[in-house]
Amino acid sequence: MKNFMDENFLLETKTAISLYNNYAKDLPIIDYHCHVSPYEINDNLRFDSITQVWLGGDHYKWRAMRAMGVSEDFITGNATDREKFRAWAKTIPMLIGNPLYHWTHLELQRYFGVMEPLCEENADKIFDHCNEILQRDDMRVRGIIQKSNVEVVCTTDDPIDKLDAHHALASDENAPSKVLPAFRPDKAMNINKETFAGYIKTLEELCDIKINTVEDLKKALKDRLDYFDKHNCSVSDHALDKLIYAEASTEELNKALLDAKVGIVPNAHLTEAFQTTILEFLAKEYHDRNWVMQLHFGCLRNNSAKMFKRLGADTGYDAMNSVSDPQKLISFLSKLEEAGKLPKTILYSLNPTENEVLLTVMGCFQTDGGVGKIQLGSAWWFNDHLIGMEKQMKDLASIGVLGAFIGMLTDSRSFLSYTRHEYFRRIVCNMIGNFVESGQYPNDEKMLKTLVEGICYKNAKDYFNF
Amino acid sequence: MKNFMDENFLLETKTAISLYNNYAKDLPIIDYHCHVSPYEINDNLRFDSITQVWLGGDHYKWRAMRAMGVSEDFITGNATDREKFRAWAKTIPMLIGNPLYHWTHLELQRYFGVMEPLCEENADKIFDHCNEILQRDDMRVRGIIQKSNVEVVCTTDDPIDKLDAHHALASDENAPSKVLPAFRPDKAMNINKETFAGYIKTLEELCDIKINTVEDLKKALKDRLDYFDKHNCSVSDHALDKLIYAEASTEELNKALLDAKVGIVPNAHLTEAFQTTILEFLAKEYHDRNWVMQLHFGCLRNNSAKMFKRLGADTGYDAMNSVSDPQKLISFLSKLEEAGKLPKTILYSLNPTENEVLLTVMGCFQTDGGVGKIQLGSAWWFNDHLIGMEKQMKDLASIGVLGAFIGMLTDSRSFLSYTRHEYFRRIVCNMIGNFVESGQYPNDEKMLKTLVEGICYKNAKDYFNF
Amino acid sequence: MKNFMDENFLLETKTAISLYNNYAKDLPIIDYHCHVSPYEINDNLRFDSITQVWLGGDHYKWRAMRAMGVSEDFITGNATDREKFRAWAKTIPMLIGNPLYHWTHLELQRYFGVMEPLCEENADKIFDHCNEILQRDDMRVRGIIQKSNVEVVCTTDDPIDKLDAHHALASDENAPSKVLPAFRPDKAMNINKETFAGYIKTLEELCDIKINTVEDLKKALKDRLDYFDKHNCSVSDHALDKLIYAEASTEELNKALLDAKVGIVPNAHLTEAFQTTILEFLAKEYHDRNWVMQLHFGCLRNNSAKMFKRLGADTGYDAMNSVSDPQKLISFLSKLEEAGKLPKTILYSLNPTENEVLLTVMGCFQTDGGVGKIQLGSAWWFNDHLIGMEKQMKDLASIGVLGAFIGMLTDSRSFLSYTRHEYFRRIVCNMIGNFVESGQYPNDEKMLKTLVEGICYKNAKDYFNF
Repeated sequence: MKNFMDENFLLETKTAISLYNNYAKDLPIIDYHCHVSPYEINDNLRFDSITQVWLGGDHYKWRAMRAMGVSEDFITGNATDREKFRAWAKTIPMLIGNPLYHWTHLELQRYFGVMEPLCEENADKIFDHCNEILQRDDMRVRGIIQKSNVEVVCTTDDPIDKLDAHHALASDENAPSKVLPAFRPDKAMNINKETFAGYIKTLEELCDIKINTVEDLKKALKDRLDYFDKHNCSVSDHALDKLIYAEASTEELNKALLDAKVGIVPNAHLTEAFQTTILEFLAKEYHDRNWVMQLHFGCLRNNSAKMFKRLGADTGYDAMNSVSDPQKLISFLSKLEEAGKLPKTILYSLNPTENEVLLTVMGCFQTDGGVGKIQLGSAWWFNDHLIGMEKQMKDLASIGVLGAFIGMLTDSRSFLSYTRHEYFRRIVCNMIGNFVESGQYPNDEKMLKTLVEGICYKNAKDYFNF
Repeated sequence: MKNFMDENFLLETKTAISLYNNYAKDLPIIDYHCHVSPYEINDNLRFDSITQVWLGGDHYKWRAMRAMGVSEDFITGNATDREKFRAWAKTIPMLIGNPLYHWTHLELQRYFGVMEPLCEENADKIFDHCNEILQRDDMRVRGIIQKSNVEVVCTTDDPIDKLDAHHALASDENAPSKVLPAFRPDKAMNINKETFAGYIKTLEELCDIKINTVEDLKKALKDRLDYFDKHNCSVSDHALDKLIYAEASTEELNKALLDAKVGIVPNAHLTEAFQTTILEFLAKEYHDRNWVMQLHFGCLRNNSAKMFKRLGADTGYDAMNSVSDPQKLISFLSKLEEAGKLPKTILYSLNPTENEVLLTVMGCFQTDGGVGKIQLGSAWWFNDHLIGMEKQMKDLASIGVLGAFIGMLTDSRSFLSYTRHEYFRRIVCNMIGNFVESGQYPNDEKMLKTLVEGICYKNAKDYFNF
Repeated sequence: MKNFMDENFLLETKTAISLYNNYAKDLPIIDYHCHVSPYEINDNLRFDSITQVWLGGDHYKWRAMRAMGVSEDFITGNATDREKFRAWAKTIPMLIGNPLYHWTHLELQRYFGVMEPLCEENADKIFDHCNEILQRDDMRVRGIIQKSNVEVVCTTDDPIDKLDAHHALASDENAPSKVLPAFRPDKAMNINKETFAGYIKTLEELCDIKINTVEDLKKALKDRLDYFDKHNCSVSDHALDKLIYAEASTEELNKALLDAKVGIVPNAHLTEAFQTTILEFLAKEYHDRNWVMQLHFGCLRNNSAKMFKRLGADTGYDAMNSVSDPQKLISFLSKLEEAGKLPKTILYSLNPTENEVLLTVMGCFQTDGGVGKIQLGSAWWFNDHLIGMEKQMKDLASIGVLGAFIGMLTDSRSFLSYTRHEYFRRIVCNMIGNFVESGQYPNDEKMLKTLVEGICYKNAKDYFNF
């Protein structure tokens, strides 16, 4: 029996242990997609309590607590930080086999030196201990980033964001890492949402442009792309319910835009055509700027009407959509490729049964594109667990090229989540170790070093030009 | 090499062996969903032969025999019991990796003391041996239930059933276990089926109500819910081809009902709207009575027109449907939740690629609902095998909370199927053992006991209030 | 640690090693579906270089090279054979976990005696070595087939093919194996493709029939079926984007045919109805001739418009489709069964998430059909890797009958691909070995021999009547 989460955690063979310790462990982290606040980095936030870090916004944990019957008072309600922490500590032992179990203990071990499993009985002791540690200067946000050996952080930003925190950090010689923006223009594309009219108004003011046609909107977005470019942005991000591809005439699209500005929601087809048009425009811009396009799709959001009214978005009420139509993705990518404007692209489906389809579609658009131009993104959100990560990499290895994979990101809202890179690296080394130990791949130290360092760090650095 | 199906069958580690023997093996069985006959329990049926028990109605075995080229004469035809048993014995060695292989031998071992693998050569000897054993009084139905340590059996019953066997058993101090009804009103919802008009007529007579509107039908069903309630029913069951959610006006629905009473089949949309309306009504009733709602979906039935004409339903000609639209399930559950009427619900999809989607949808409706209010049902029917059961539990562990799982049921038409609970418990203990042995979970005896006993017995007992 | 790809490659247990060596290794090969040229067999082609064999038409390798950023010049372009081989040698070490890694080295080991892993450093040496070997007489096409112990090869042929190479080989006592045609009438069914009008014209001339109605087309196809029958054909093959089932009147179908002859493309529904009609006709013919019907479906082809213009079809730009509607397959099979005309059928979906659905549909149409009448085809194309093959067989074992499986084919365009049968057999023996070693199946030598020999050779021989 292996010890509980010791230094050889998830490393099943000697080869795995050696690969992890020699090549993976000490590599810097490139966190090319996350949801932490650049302001909290710039302000070097100090946390009041471990509850604030862990349970302040982490809806993964909230969902687990709800499934264990914890009252909402102790999740998003008015209970004290200590009470909420106790509720979490009571939940965690039931989470056998869940990544939250591992992340919680990796964070306790690496940042707080707590080696014992969290449970109801030691909750108060650990709560006090962590809070004491969190008051140290080296456990403010910048300290955490520095001790986590983070080289680059890409935040997630709206086109209308001012990027003032990024601006300040770019010229701050004490910045803990590069902190770069990512361009996420969902609100400019979601013509069917209530937020659209107001958003367009803000964009008009910010860019000093009247937006009455699709061309006007493109101009405004181009203005903001330039602005992000100046702030060293090299990556975009899109959230889509499903893969999209639809066409409509310019007149129809302009009419839909004008309608939406006065609150008239276009039909499903026009919505999709409008989104396709804007996404195509942006993709071409990304290509010309050598940016990376990230497409996250397959999510149904805010599914509990009751709880959406009470808590709003991003509170743990989202779900996977069913599988998409691959023909739409093919039509979209092929059109861009024919125009000579296909950017580097990362595809993330929330539905893991789509991995194989996406890998085969990807394989059709790699011609003369450099190493791994189109990527299958790391296992995302509900799939970001041991089985999901292994499946994503085994699918990639079987159908695509594992050696070209750009690897892990945290997708996190918490500064303690960098241990997810450790989790990923252990899984990578274990998997590669198993290929070697089983005689499926030669025990060639030089090549293994290349593979491990590539997947854990170098491929991403090259891909994003960091 | 491990011995063939010995006491450590499926238990790969010392921890697994210890968990199974110390905590799982001797727990009583709660069989909260099956298809055995309450009359056979009440009458304490004695079986003529092992063929009758095994091959009388088990269409799992029939399908395997057909795929091996066994003539239908020896399956559902006029061959003798001995001949049919021989045909099965000849088929079984080809079923390597199939759960039928394991169930057959678990049943031979536990009920008949036969430790050798069944094959053509020993078929006659084993046939005679089993038939002799079956003549013993302790191998009549009640004896089998008692020696299987069954605490509760929930049968599957139509709203129009009289429940007289349940009534008799409730006051019979020699009853081998609690035998409770489950409410399965499919025929009242399937307005598009030939059976509908006749069914409504029977319901009218039984409840002494004219059913000319949807409201009338609700009244009749409420009457039957009350009747089932009096017979200690606390669980319902629905079979759906796909997940449903559609709306229509009361006038449209009433018209559809009147049409259907004279044999005019409503269109697909109206059928779905009618079913949604009745299901919503029933769900609210289940909520108010603190019943559990089971939704089984994703099955295409009676697919061989030729064999349906010859043998009728439930004869081994059903298949999985493709995946459903999760938005329908979301709309349905959210509407109930907003009304404060969402009952405890168990979701079973016949398509195992839907596990992940269902788990993420479930996670949106657990708020303030007690432990594991919405459950992903145990691997069902075509998925009820080692890989399918492991997948269901690993998916649940990865995305939901394994510790809250209510565990196994037999879904069986045979009284010898209780060994499926043993099969399940071995898999549970092995999986949990692997988490511990690999250092992914602490070797904490108290917590492991809680998990194993919970999943194998206590969670179901609490969930159903048995 | 096991040695790299030695004699025990993929064999994890003593039982696996023993099964492979005693029962699997020396069995002849029945390659019932591939894409090699009968002319190259008849002409006993000699290869100029290993690049010609490996990279001349193998779009699997091309895709991997593209994903590694290799310029198209070195793939399908004007670079020399040596340069292209170097580019492949540089790509291969990145393909950890990919079947190309294993196939490449199995072929190097078995045909060229090269035991070291291919990489950039030894590329030139291995290139020269292989080319020297390829000049030997026993490494011309017939020699390769003979030393691979191939008993039957089924090529893939169009109804209009003359089959002259097959004819010559049938009476050639030095033929290296049986070389039989397979009937693949896709062009006669694809009424919506540009090629249709021209194809019909060719068929008219060849059969000396005017094709102005669906009946005429059936007559012409019947003529060609007879012709293939005379050339010992006993297997057909169909490529479908998705599963199909649609109906239209004879008038509509005849009109669609006449339209298509003058370049008017019928709509999607009529296309599907036309294809269903022809497929149904052919299926009945297959049944009456005791042929096997192969249905390959779930492929989206020629997805890169840019590269299709440049390189044409079958150049590495295809992808998996999403899942199909199982009801269509059910309707089709049930209609044939009711008519007493359901032929032996092999179902291959390119989307591996459909395995379970297909297995359950298959199970509905096995009645009185002989051993394994309806088969789930071996893991196909993008799924033809270790994980995909294991999944296909475990799914089959869990839901169907593994013992009735007809096993592997190469689906290959290269004469060196026969090692894929070795790959498959190792996986089969390892899987069966694991069932035995883990105590899930008895260590019964006679039965294990039956299973291994059946799946690797005998079941196919019986199924196809070779």
